[in-house]
Amino acid sequence: MAGHTLTAIALIISTAIALIISTALSAVIVPQQNSSQWQDWSLSPSQRAANLLPQLAWEEKIAQMGGIRQLLGVNATFNRTTWDTLYPLQHGILSYGNQLNSAQDVLRMANMVREEQLNSSFKIPWISVTDSVNSIYVTGGTIFPATLSLSSSWNLPLYEQVVAAIRDENVALGTKWVLSPELDVAKDPRNGRVDVYLIGEFTARYLKTMQERDENGFIKVACTIKHFLYGQGMGGVNTASMDGGANHLYNDLAVPYIRAIQEDPVSIMISYSSVDRVPMSMNTKLVQGMLRNEMGFEGMIMSDAMGILHLHTESRVASSYEDAAVKALKAGLQIELAPGQPACFPFLVNRSDDSEIEQLVTEAARHMLEVKFATGMFDLPLSSEEILNQTLRAEKHLEVNRQASRESLVLLQNDGILPKSGLGKVAVLGPLADIIDAGSYGPINSANPHNGQSLRRSLEAKLGTENVFYEQGVEINNSSDGSGINAAIAAAQKAGLAIISLGSLSVYFYDPNVASRTDGEFFSHPDLGFPGEQQQLLDAVLDAGVPTILVLGGGQAFVLNNSTMRANAIIHSFLGGEFTGDALVETITGMVNPSGKLTISMPQAQGAFPIYYDYLPSDNVGGFAAVCSGDWTLPCLNRSDPPMAFGYGLSYTTFEISAPQVSAGDSVEVSCTVTNTGVVAGKEVVQVYYDQEYSTIELPNKRLIRFEKVDLQPGGSQNVNFSIDRDEMGYYVDAKYQVGSGNYTFWIGSSSRAQDLQNTTVTL
Amino acid sequence: MAGHTLTAIALIISTAIALIISTALSAVIVPQQNSSQWQDWSLSPSQRAANLLPQLAWEEKIAQMGGIRQLLGVNATFNRTTWDTLYPLQHGILSYGNQLNSAQDVLRMANMVREEQLNSSFKIPWISVTDSVNSIYVTGGTIFPATLSLSSSWNLPLYEQVVAAIRDENVALGTKWVLSPELDVAKDPRNGRVDVYLIGEFTARYLKTMQERDENGFIKVACTIKHFLYGQGMGGVNTASMDGGANHLYNDLAVPYIRAIQEDPVSIMISYSSVDRVPMSMNTKLVQGMLRNEMGFEGMIMSDAMGILHLHTESRVASSYEDAAVKALKAGLQIELAPGQPACFPFLVNRSDDSEIEQLVTEAARHMLEVKFATGMFDLPLSSEEILNQTLRAEKHLEVNRQASRESLVLLQNDGILPKSGLGKVAVLGPLADIIDAGSYGPINSANPHNGQSLRRSLEAKLGTENVFYEQGVEINNSSDGSGINAAIAAAQKAGLAIISLGSLSVYFYDPNVASRTDGEFFSHPDLGFPGEQQQLLDAVLDAGVPTILVLGGGQAFVLNNSTMRANAIIHSFLGGEFTGDALVETITGMVNPSGKLTISMPQAQGAFPIYYDYLPSDNVGGFAAVCSGDWTLPCLNRSDPPMAFGYGLSYTTFEISAPQVSAGDSVEVSCTVTNTGVVAGKEVVQVYYDQEYSTIELPNKRLIRFEKVDLQPGGSQNVNFSIDRDEMGYYVDAKYQVGSGNYTFWIGSSSRAQDLQNTTVTL
Repeated sequence: MAGHTLTAIALIISTAIALIISTALSAVIVPQQNSSQWQDWSLSPSQRAANLLPQLAWEEKIAQMGGIRQLLGVNATFNRTTWDTLYPLQHGILSYGNQLNSAQDVLRMANMVREEQLNSSFKIPWISVTDSVNSIYVTGGTIFPATLSLSSSWNLPLYEQVVAAIRDENVALGTKWVLSPELDVAKDPRNGRVDVYLIGEFTARYLKTMQERDENGFIKVACTIKHFLYGQGMGGVNTASMDGGANHLYNDLAVPYIRAIQEDPVSIMISYSSVDRVPMSMNTKLVQGMLRNEMGFEGMIMSDAMGILHLHTESRVASSYEDAAVKALKAGLQIELAPGQPACFPFLVNRSDDSEIEQLVTEAARHMLEVKFATGMFDLPLSSEEILNQTLRAEKHLEVNRQASRESLVLLQNDGILPKSGLGKVAVLGPLADIIDAGSYGPINSANPHNGQSLRRSLEAKLGTENVFYEQGVEINNSSDGSGINAAIAAAQKAGLAIISLGSLSVYFYDPNVASRTDGEFFSHPDLGFPGEQQQLLDAVLDAGVPTILVLGGGQAFVLNNSTMRANAIIHSFLGGEFTGDALVETITGMVNPSGKLTISMPQAQGAFPIYYDYLPSDNVGGFAAVCSGDWTLPCLNRSDPPMAFGYGLSYTTFEISAPQVSAGDSVEVSCTVTNTGVVAGKEVVQVYYDQEYSTIELPNKRLIRFEKVDLQPGGSQNVNFSIDRDEMGYYVDAKYQVGSGNYTFWIGSSSRAQDLQNTTVTL
Repeated sequence: MAGHTLTAIALIISTAIALIISTALSAVIVPQQNSSQWQDWSLSPSQRAANLLPQLAWEEKIAQMGGIRQLLGVNATFNRTTWDTLYPLQHGILSYGNQLNSAQDVLRMANMVREEQLNSSFKIPWISVTDSVNSIYVTGGTIFPATLSLSSSWNLPLYEQVVAAIRDENVALGTKWVLSPELDVAKDPRNGRVDVYLIGEFTARYLKTMQERDENGFIKVACTIKHFLYGQGMGGVNTASMDGGANHLYNDLAVPYIRAIQEDPVSIMISYSSVDRVPMSMNTKLVQGMLRNEMGFEGMIMSDAMGILHLHTESRVASSYEDAAVKALKAGLQIELAPGQPACFPFLVNRSDDSEIEQLVTEAARHMLEVKFATGMFDLPLSSEEILNQTLRAEKHLEVNRQASRESLVLLQNDGILPKSGLGKVAVLGPLADIIDAGSYGPINSANPHNGQSLRRSLEAKLGTENVFYEQGVEINNSSDGSGINAAIAAAQKAGLAIISLGSLSVYFYDPNVASRTDGEFFSHPDLGFPGEQQQLLDAVLDAGVPTILVLGGGQAFVLNNSTMRANAIIHSFLGGEFTGDALVETITGMVNPSGKLTISMPQAQGAFPIYYDYLPSDNVGGFAAVCSGDWTLPCLNRSDPPMAFGYGLSYTTFEISAPQVSAGDSVEVSCTVTNTGVVAGKEVVQVYYDQEYSTIELPNKRLIRFEKVDLQPGGSQNVNFSIDRDEMGYYVDAKYQVGSGNYTFWIGSSSRAQDLQNTTVTL
């Protein structure tokens, strides 16, 4: 054996990877035991392996754990130099390389290297491991329909025959191991989907057939089932991450709660959601365990409206209303908010003999009393109509509202048309132009508000009724005869400027426009374009060549297609208040310089979501942008930041933000200088993001950690300093908070987009 | 106190809910302790509550846990009867009801019921709990822009002023508790999204401001932060479930693996995915814990290509290649498949002094040896070119392939145009008509296959070249000048019948058409319409009024819009093999009766995914279908099964499937009779689904449990029996398998759609 070992060592040190193993050479021990029992067919594979194993050198064991990926290159070429380089530590498994080589070429070369190997030290043979889906891996075999096609046959015996044929062709090629079948259950059609039972049955037939024993009892073709575990990758992106437990909850969803609990909220409401198949209203692990015990929340825990009842009526995890009440109580719920009838908690009245229930009810009552004491309910006088009238719509409230309305508008696009100080005649168009869309919790009559006014009315107040040509054009969500669009085009052409207000409507159930609702609670919708025929209205006005300012309304992101992007300016007003119409007019005319920034990212295509700037690194590698421009990686379509990303928004002036200065001590000090380089006053939101080079679990590629809104006169400049405790830059691993050391990158700039940020790195 | 108690009891028994509490009455104990310390302002809320609590009757405690939802109805109406009914066990919290009532009306009535309550037994006051987003809950207050708008201001001090104004208006209305702020992080734009840090900061300001103490030290307005926890609801549907742990993994993704492991796969490949922020290639919990220990897998565990390397280069959870190798090894990985260079496992060569690593490496090597023994690698002779040539493309393989190709086609729509036995002249159009799209693991030249033929060539072979007018029309994914479409229309009109082959292309990297790839591994795409200008081609031919058979190709579901649905017939061929062209011709001409059924559901709109028949009950309650036809609930747009759902597919004959007969013993026997009621022979897939009435965790609304493909002559009939062990109908709770008792529903029929199923219920 010593001779063999010397040969092996000589081979190893002649290779390019000699460096990495040099320190290990002294540790190489060749067992002197020499036995050939492993050659005895009559023993089991297990017994034979047990005999052979002690005879392997350390490197041999390592080498069995890897292999050669490319036996042959294009046109059946064999690169001996590369082969010899990799061989010493990678000679367990053999793959064939180029898929378009012929089976005959592959077999010849595979047999050659197999023979070489069998003449080497331990005679441990190569095993070929290849993909094999609807054929052998290389050309020359039978090409069957692919798996998704075959599954559509719902014919298991036929499927067995297909697998047997593929198996036999593999064996003939010397392929004894295939990377099949695939068991992944992808419920998103962007990544395929078949039923779990159906996959299981097809898989079982595949394995029985492919791994059938030959007449000697040997497995014909071994299988690797894959890919454990991969389900609905984020956004349907190939290889993207899956949410699935405490690390996701703690490092994403729970982050704002952890921050909020520092401010002692009196109570927390439990969501409707089922998390991991357990409705939150009975989720003891997440309510009692995570929220109470781990996060330390001490306030009252409240159901959402009918949330407890749903345990019985919807989720069917409680067999009665009383059972639902007990489960919710034991999970930690203490108030049943706005119950449907029958309410569930009243059924607890029967359960006072149960000491656990009695104790929990008592505790809930104690909690409620404390709230009432703390809020002065026992002690303060009742409010009066006089107080009410003095307070509601107080002048200072209205002034704050005006300012909030101005700063909430986000200018998304502007070719220079804005600001338009000398606004003369204008056509105001679209189904949102003459209503106030305040959201489903805004107690206002959207069509006929008692206070405040629509964009149309604000324009009329500013320009005079005679200068404002209003046409609704289309309804929010219904089809029309097109006459409204023609009237809108005529109005636009007459005025020479169009302001078009489009979007989605979210109003309360008692609102007169409720039948036109398209968004808000209960109104989830898969399509992020404009509802109804709104796009046609916009296209028609743009086609007519009239300069156009597009005002978006609605509590959502929209997909702005290429046609929409022809608008000269785009402003998103989201769900506006009573002064949003005024604020839009002030902004359009330049009395107000817009300063809002997006807090959601706008997706670039239908279906291209979820979308957010703080994706995980592995979520951004699912597509080959260089090969196919239409592919889809998480942050956007073309693997760069989407144009209208989190933090993005335009101004009528320009700002320069200097590169960040960073110094690190107990805290990290990040600073920069912001300068208003334009000719009008304006506000810029300076944003600080950070990332850690290496971490214990995957962390987002960057995260917002500070921001400040800075108000600057033209030419004005201000130094902005951010102090960040090191403790703030940690993350949770299995619910335990930890702060890492190593390199951190800090970005500073005007949005989350790479082109709007400058960075520096510091070691902590 | 006795007097008060009697009054309370009298009130209770006068109500409609008297029944449910009657058994509890005897248990009502009124503590004789009587103290008024709780009235002492100088004590803390905690001390005061402690004093009062023992004095509460049991019902009083219960009552504090709920409240009255509707103080007032429409137009400020007050229903005294309802009020009195609910009062006894629901009088902790007060909500106002109709949002369009005026603040003045609400205050007057709230003060009235508060006064009544303060004159009652324990003088425990009502506390008002209302939503309050951008205003007080009812009309008359200041309407601010909604939260998403305000967040766009990125102006925290301004936000504080807004919150203070809303707070003061609430206090003036007597509202001391608001169900705000909302902290939910929804990364899907169908449900909104702001950054976790940003939410945290805005929330903190909200709480500080809203819960500010008044001059007496009382909380001005208490807050309920919400909804703990709710992130990305499935499919962007409001209230839908979230995946998040072992119950999801075990009851969904792992199901096929558990089935497969019964068949002893030699190995399992580990996915690229990060699950809960931990890449699977180092996920000790899911690989060693779940797969090895809990699921009992004893085979070899293999990485995906470069999966280990990605720990360092992509996910940045390993600080070096060596670190990646160690983490993967310790998690349980034993083979590094097709590594990038440098490979990671070779770095382990330095670590033989680490006994854990040494042991794991040794174990991996032992495993590999066993595989090689089991497959005969040590013992069997090498394959030869002679064997290869005898085996590849053996006649029996080709015959199996022809049959598999026929049965894999799914007929999705047919207005009677098919079968078309007397096929004369035909125009064959579209970018997939003259290639073989065998998928990215099909080793075939798609444009010029050595074996098999395209749809075009199959048609030419059947009808003669002179009767087949081929026009590509458009390219798969590029824009064109439109001339191809015109030529296609001309060909269609000349032939009088068009067969249009559209879809997505998935070929290997060495294929000549690789630049046109639109689907398959690495080619995730958000859009499920036809790539490029294919839709325009189809629309143009349909607009021309030519009868059209649409053949879909590609390994994916497509969104078939209203225009597409004008096609007279639609067949999905998915990823076909070398005989799929022939099988299509055989099917179109009626030589073959289609018998494939969908194994994925076809979404009804862009973005309307994930989509699958086995949704959780709570995933189907997110929208009000009655209010808005455009809303989105998980299974489909209109809360009924999508037309082209899992299990769906048409035939040229008709089948009648009888209602199921079910009998239950140790196993459940489900049977039915299938009859071919048409005039041609055909195959029907009889499908059995089931559901359990109540379960410990949420389970899918129905699940496939058996199926059988039945071949019947016209008029022929067959009894089909399915035997299902009770043990098969269990599910996993926290990784433990359990089988429930109670009512089970079994459905039997021809697809997963409700209209194609009949059911019966049995108690197990």
